[in-house]
Amino acid sequence: MTAATQSRLDRLRAALDAPALLLTDSLNISYMTAMTGLIDAEDPHVVLITPDAAVLLTDSRYSETAREQAAAVAAATATPAASPWQIVEFSATRPAAEEVIGQLAHHKVTAVALEDTLSHRRYQDWTRRLADRGITVQESSGLVEALRRCKDASELEAIAAAQAITDAAFTQMLGFMQPGMREIDIASELEYRMRKLGATGLAFESIIAAGPNGAKPHALPSARAIEPGDLLVMDFGAAKDGYCSDMTRTVAFGDPGAEAREVYAVVLAAQQAGLDAARAGQRGRDVHEAAREVIARAGYGERFGHGLSHGLGMLVHETPHCSPRSTDTLAPGDVISMEPGIYLPGRFGVRIEDLIAITPGGVRNFTTSPKELTIL
Amino acid sequence: MTAATQSRLDRLRAALDAPALLLTDSLNISYMTAMTGLIDAEDPHVVLITPDAAVLLTDSRYSETAREQAAAVAAATATPAASPWQIVEFSATRPAAEEVIGQLAHHKVTAVALEDTLSHRRYQDWTRRLADRGITVQESSGLVEALRRCKDASELEAIAAAQAITDAAFTQMLGFMQPGMREIDIASELEYRMRKLGATGLAFESIIAAGPNGAKPHALPSARAIEPGDLLVMDFGAAKDGYCSDMTRTVAFGDPGAEAREVYAVVLAAQQAGLDAARAGQRGRDVHEAAREVIARAGYGERFGHGLSHGLGMLVHETPHCSPRSTDTLAPGDVISMEPGIYLPGRFGVRIEDLIAITPGGVRNFTTSPKELTIL
Repeated sequence: MTAATQSRLDRLRAALDAPALLLTDSLNISYMTAMTGLIDAEDPHVVLITPDAAVLLTDSRYSETAREQAAAVAAATATPAASPWQIVEFSATRPAAEEVIGQLAHHKVTAVALEDTLSHRRYQDWTRRLADRGITVQESSGLVEALRRCKDASELEAIAAAQAITDAAFTQMLGFMQPGMREIDIASELEYRMRKLGATGLAFESIIAAGPNGAKPHALPSARAIEPGDLLVMDFGAAKDGYCSDMTRTVAFGDPGAEAREVYAVVLAAQQAGLDAARAGQRGRDVHEAAREVIARAGYGERFGHGLSHGLGMLVHETPHCSPRSTDTLAPGDVISMEPGIYLPGRFGVRIEDLIAITPGGVRNFTTSPKELTIL
Repeated sequence: MTAATQSRLDRLRAALDAPALLLTDSLNISYMTAMTGLIDAEDPHVVLITPDAAVLLTDSRYSETAREQAAAVAAATATPAASPWQIVEFSATRPAAEEVIGQLAHHKVTAVALEDTLSHRRYQDWTRRLADRGITVQESSGLVEALRRCKDASELEAIAAAQAITDAAFTQMLGFMQPGMREIDIASELEYRMRKLGATGLAFESIIAAGPNGAKPHALPSARAIEPGDLLVMDFGAAKDGYCSDMTRTVAFGDPGAEAREVYAVVLAAQQAGLDAARAGQRGRDVHEAAREVIARAGYGERFGHGLSHGLGMLVHETPHCSPRSTDTLAPGDVISMEPGIYLPGRFGVRIEDLIAITPGGVRNFTTSPKELTIL
């Protein structure tokens, strides 16, 4: 962990075009510190990075965990080095901004970059408070996100572990699901199995959509019971140790009929075309087009309305994207989904999704569940 | 649902200090449309509200659900009225901003308010694109959040239903937990029970923290097994139909010792002081102080580092707050937590949390689980 956080700090400092940087996004902060347990939707932490200091400011709910982790890192190093991180606890009665301003003064910082993912409200508030103390704010866009995009070996293993849980839970569900079960029951059984297999949480809200609900790509599980002949779209993922997984399989309960079988075959062929096209150096929009073309040739071009692929890591949706308007080019270290779909409103939907890493020589597919149409 | 969305539109238009408003926050959009299934962490939707139009712009993943819900609302009305909502689907190939600009032109809008919860990056991007078309942007802060703060009868029932699931799951766990079980196992069993009891998801990541882990108010469940004499802090909540619940109980496995019993009694007395102080018209900071004073008198003032209470609704943390720096005053319709705690680093923690609504004449406590120290 020391190696990871030190290497990330080195790379961030090299990329930084300002005397100092304030981080506010709790995912970016978790990544930079390589500390677990700091993720909080309300982004209560602030990190200050200068050429020779790295300070984590957090509140009393998190400070003990942070101190323990910084100490554990220092202790576990082969050549014992102090953690590069200094932990400062916010006072409960003083505005957080005052504490940060104190740190900036202490480190003699007079210009600082601020992440533009901060809400406009907080960005303006910070800018005003800092200006009042003579500190200039510089806009910073996607610095840590750019580091996060290229996954290192330990991150790839964390994603592989999360995906292995997801595949194993799916396999268990194949022996459990039957007509009459409701979408919400399948969701709860699936999520329970992922937890028991070691997930620390869900990567996102599961989509378990039977029959016509499957035609809505983002349907939430409902009380609809599975009927014989239904297709069931299952799109789900586990979170484990700060990293996500994501897969989709569409299964049938009895013979779903000729058109459903044809649509399934088209989606599977489209996915294979996408997998074949997804290589380092390829443009995201071209990879999308490779899969879309298979669907369009089969006459379903209007029924594939979303992008083929999104990046994944600490978040289930990250850069890069393979979609019509993407400007990304794939590179080694990218972890992306591959998920074409065809949706026939009022009737059914089919989506098949694998999770892959772009490697120097090709792709690594993390998803092991079979893809031929499973009829239960 | 028609009544709710129409009344919310009426109130928003009355509060709006601009010719039109663009909403981008998906919770605010779900609230205003009274449509379920639109919540998405990436906020892909945009809503345009003018004095005589209400337009939901969304993508193909959500548009069918939105159209169905708009139609269902119209059909279910006693005096059938069209839904006030017009649904527009984004094109997959054209930037969303272009679609929105087209709508603004169509509705002859030349100045529009934009929510300041939008990221600084998106806020600036929108402002630039709109300015290019001669449309002025006005900053808007907390308009929909102010409406969301005061819960109506149907929202109170949704929160009560979510809390009932949470209490029922806790009761089931009392008959299940025993020493030797790991925190993560307890978390997965608890979450499974909430799901089976009807939860549509979790309100937040469960905190299941045994022994010294309980001294970290935001600890994530670990592989630590419960030992005889441990206190276990359980802080968890269900999501149901778009609303959250939140409760904390601290239970003991065998006699936790005299100090733990004393600390428990202090926290319980502090919570009662908070419950007694929480009345419409009272300032949040005074309510916090009422509880804190009990803890301070017992000598643990330094061991209660967080706020006493946060608002709750569609999000687990909303306005108002009872904390040292709060500027909120409680009002009827507020739904808030009441959760003092004492944390002794390296030893144990105690937190007790109920969920209450401020009513015109007092409070309604949604939480039914007993609060005397339970020894398992």
